[in-house]
Amino acid sequence: MVNIGIVGYGNLARGVECAIRQNEDLALAAVFTRRDPASVKILTPNVPVLPLEATADWKDRIDVMILCGGSATDLPKMTPVFARDFNVIDSFDTHATIPAHFENVNAAAVESGHIAFISMGWDPGLFSVNRLYASAILPQGKDYTFWGKGVSQGHSDAVRRIPGVLDCRQYTIPVESAMDRVRAGENPQLSTREKHSRYCYVVAAEGADKAAIENAIKTMPNYFADYDTTVEFISMEEMRRDHSGLPHGGSVIRSGVTGWDGENHQTIEYKLTLDSNPQFTASVLVACARAAMKMKARGITGCQTIFDIPPADLSPLPREELLAHML
Amino acid sequence: MVNIGIVGYGNLARGVECAIRQNEDLALAAVFTRRDPASVKILTPNVPVLPLEATADWKDRIDVMILCGGSATDLPKMTPVFARDFNVIDSFDTHATIPAHFENVNAAAVESGHIAFISMGWDPGLFSVNRLYASAILPQGKDYTFWGKGVSQGHSDAVRRIPGVLDCRQYTIPVESAMDRVRAGENPQLSTREKHSRYCYVVAAEGADKAAIENAIKTMPNYFADYDTTVEFISMEEMRRDHSGLPHGGSVIRSGVTGWDGENHQTIEYKLTLDSNPQFTASVLVACARAAMKMKARGITGCQTIFDIPPADLSPLPREELLAHML
Repeated sequence: MVNIGIVGYGNLARGVECAIRQNEDLALAAVFTRRDPASVKILTPNVPVLPLEATADWKDRIDVMILCGGSATDLPKMTPVFARDFNVIDSFDTHATIPAHFENVNAAAVESGHIAFISMGWDPGLFSVNRLYASAILPQGKDYTFWGKGVSQGHSDAVRRIPGVLDCRQYTIPVESAMDRVRAGENPQLSTREKHSRYCYVVAAEGADKAAIENAIKTMPNYFADYDTTVEFISMEEMRRDHSGLPHGGSVIRSGVTGWDGENHQTIEYKLTLDSNPQFTASVLVACARAAMKMKARGITGCQTIFDIPPADLSPLPREELLAHML
Repeated sequence: MVNIGIVGYGNLARGVECAIRQNEDLALAAVFTRRDPASVKILTPNVPVLPLEATADWKDRIDVMILCGGSATDLPKMTPVFARDFNVIDSFDTHATIPAHFENVNAAAVESGHIAFISMGWDPGLFSVNRLYASAILPQGKDYTFWGKGVSQGHSDAVRRIPGVLDCRQYTIPVESAMDRVRAGENPQLSTREKHSRYCYVVAAEGADKAAIENAIKTMPNYFADYDTTVEFISMEEMRRDHSGLPHGGSVIRSGVTGWDGENHQTIEYKLTLDSNPQFTASVLVACARAAMKMKARGITGCQTIFDIPPADLSPLPREELLAHML
């Protein structure tokens, strides 16, 4: 039995809690929070909610700590600190600073003799490992990653900061015709605008200048200016009724050629269609907890990514069963 | 540089030869054949074609031997024998006897201190590892594997054995509506007939009884009787013009649920669309040669499968580059 601790208790952490319940060889040991523990009600019976400072007392009772903080400010500090006392897993997803995060976490984990998995989830995570498999198998080729249809929380937040906006849900939508060109082996050069479009459902305050809001969204640099963006104003009731979920997904497509002169086209596509982005990410983190313990038992320590995990370590099934039924 | 030997020189072996050419860190050392070497003309300049018995002289000059024999009779004998003298890779694809093959190869490889990869390719191989990832991440779910559209060589051969048939190309076609039901999360129970249909292009001898041929195909047990099968008679010219390739592919779909009460549906789909089945299979084998050398360097010996390979070992890129650009 792998005993798991959770740090934080937002959407991702609740997903971790639910995913642990689906695995008989994993158990939730405790949840640690920065909030007043008495104010945090979790789903699992008979599991304590404790203040963050209490982790020190749990070093011997937790096999793996899953860190459910944000990538902007929490994880860069949190993961190296926790890696001193625990085997840890995070979902650090700021692609540009992954190498620096890796170094910081690795230094702590190597020194303490723990194993630390960073950047787990689906992108980075499953999408990354599929990019790796596909590029290793089809070296003469090109990778394309499309995201959506799904809710981008960063973009939704950006719109919410515009004066007069009460709420927003922003959907990132892949351009199907661009995906079809990639699948057909055209190897197109695609601009930002050609790959994805954006759709914003906005609840405006009474009397707000909707034209001004729409303009502020569509011209927002980095977030929207480079995309075809549609803005639709809806009521708070519609928002609650139709947009309470956090769906997401996307596709990694490798288009390559084989043959003596590259005469045959080959396409590898990996596609996720997710009703709940945080719960799916959490399910990846939880499978990684099992792998962490197996790798640690073989003497592996330091910072590791999904590229380093022999896939069998993610599964609860013994080798005999994998050979007989899954290979 | 990884020096690769190839045993055999059929479609798969030629694909291996082409795939090696696409990788700067891999080199073809020699091709070994059961035929008269003088009768075998390979594509790569300055590489010897040698009789099978010559392998003994090449123990020190070949890092990995890729065995391009058939699964029915060649590989069950060949892989354990070659594993005594070489690190080996095969594409053994008789799912039912993989455990027995594993044991035989493992015994030989453990004793000789070599590493042996079996059942590499796409199914078994990439499809298997995707079934493993997906089932580990979504334990409450169901796997579906669909094949095609593609040429099944076994089914084509079976039709060719019918009296009056000069040639046949049999395409396995997945039933799109069944795939859509799976993607929609219906978790249907699908019969053999509901998952795939079969389409046979047949060249009949002059004066042959076409009705009898069609009936012999459609009622053939195991191969066709359980499927909706269409038979179309074409000329030898049409066969050569339109059906000379060996396309294939398929999808592995995992449909699962997450959440405290399984309230959210999640779908993982891995899809291959291949113009050349043997060349793609070969590309997997060749990437595995690199992984075999890296794992061997870490002291790993014995029989291994795609489940045991840390994905990073398949890539020629150093860790720093993987972290910076692929994760």
